[in-house]
Amino acid sequence: MEYIPSKLLSDAVDQFSRLPGIGKKTALRLVLDIIKRDEKTVNNFANSITTLKAKIHNCVICGNLSDEETCTICANPKRDHGMICVVENIRDVIAIEQTGTYHGTYHILGGLISPIDGIGPNELNIQQLQKRVDENEVHELIFALSANMEGDTTCFYLSRLFRSKVQKISQIARGVAFGGDLEYTDEVTLARSLESRTLYSNE
Amino acid sequence: MEYIPSKLLSDAVDQFSRLPGIGKKTALRLVLDIIKRDEKTVNNFANSITTLKAKIHNCVICGNLSDEETCTICANPKRDHGMICVVENIRDVIAIEQTGTYHGTYHILGGLISPIDGIGPNELNIQQLQKRVDENEVHELIFALSANMEGDTTCFYLSRLFRSKVQKISQIARGVAFGGDLEYTDEVTLARSLESRTLYSNE
Repeated sequence: MEYIPSKLLSDAVDQFSRLPGIGKKTALRLVLDIIKRDEKTVNNFANSITTLKAKIHNCVICGNLSDEETCTICANPKRDHGMICVVENIRDVIAIEQTGTYHGTYHILGGLISPIDGIGPNELNIQQLQKRVDENEVHELIFALSANMEGDTTCFYLSRLFRSKVQKISQIARGVAFGGDLEYTDEVTLARSLESRTLYSNE
Repeated sequence: MEYIPSKLLSDAVDQFSRLPGIGKKTALRLVLDIIKRDEKTVNNFANSITTLKAKIHNCVICGNLSDEETCTICANPKRDHGMICVVENIRDVIAIEQTGTYHGTYHILGGLISPIDGIGPNELNIQQLQKRVDENEVHELIFALSANMEGDTTCFYLSRLFRSKVQKISQIARGVAFGGDLEYTDEVTLARSLESRTLYSNE
């Protein structure tokens, strides 16, 4: 997009187009929408961003985003603090919380081990996880990481690291998704779901 | 999305999800990306928005967005000021400027006549167009409006309004788009492109 009638406009479009998944055209659409609003709404929008950046914390325990030093999950006495679900990022926490079925705590790694991208264990939030395991009675570690090479590598690394310290280490099930058609499921998924088949109990 | 770990985060997500085409999930992705940046970059982002809103003008002549009172096109003595291309919004100006083939000026209506949405001629920037035609020597008005009911209605209204004042009134061609397959062109477009066929000159 070469012609933009105003420097102010083109600055704002530039800023928006640096956001993930936003190209120049979408950025322009967003900015033109913002211009139409009244000044107060626009200032509220801008303020919400600066305030967020200035005041948001990472939970000192699990690494989740939080308004306070400790996030609402780690501060909740009703959650099972002996059960830690290890995830890659905060979006995974949100996804699991939405199921409404998990009542333990989380630990956010901030990434996955990926030698190709130069990310080793030291780049991740693993030391803090070790500290949590050492200082608390953790009875189960659940790995809920992406079902790809990096996720598998990280699971393997962590399971080795903690197998002497935590009694139960598990990984979320991988298999055919709910509603998934067997015919269209890829071979790797299908092979894995066969491998980790669950027994009907004989009760 | 019910669970969001922080009020600050959820405020910012709310603000972003009010932008056109941005849902809660995309908003969250954008906001999490912003959190990762350093404070200066975030402040620049927020500033670009507030400065834009506070300082941008609408060109007093054509209604285009501009840093000054008059936009760069209306202020350019090299453009043909007797030729006015009437468009709906500034995105259309950008689209036409990108062709690099138009050297006249523009007039931005700010919408199209649409009785269903309660938009009549008085809601549009038409008075200013009348003033421009009355006070200057305008030799051609070009309507470059959307090829739909509202666009057609607006073209018809404007052509009636100006036919006694402007010698030449035209409308951009409607027909099969470049690269368009005849087979897959809709009937209305095809019928129109037949109707407004152009003659090969006999030179």
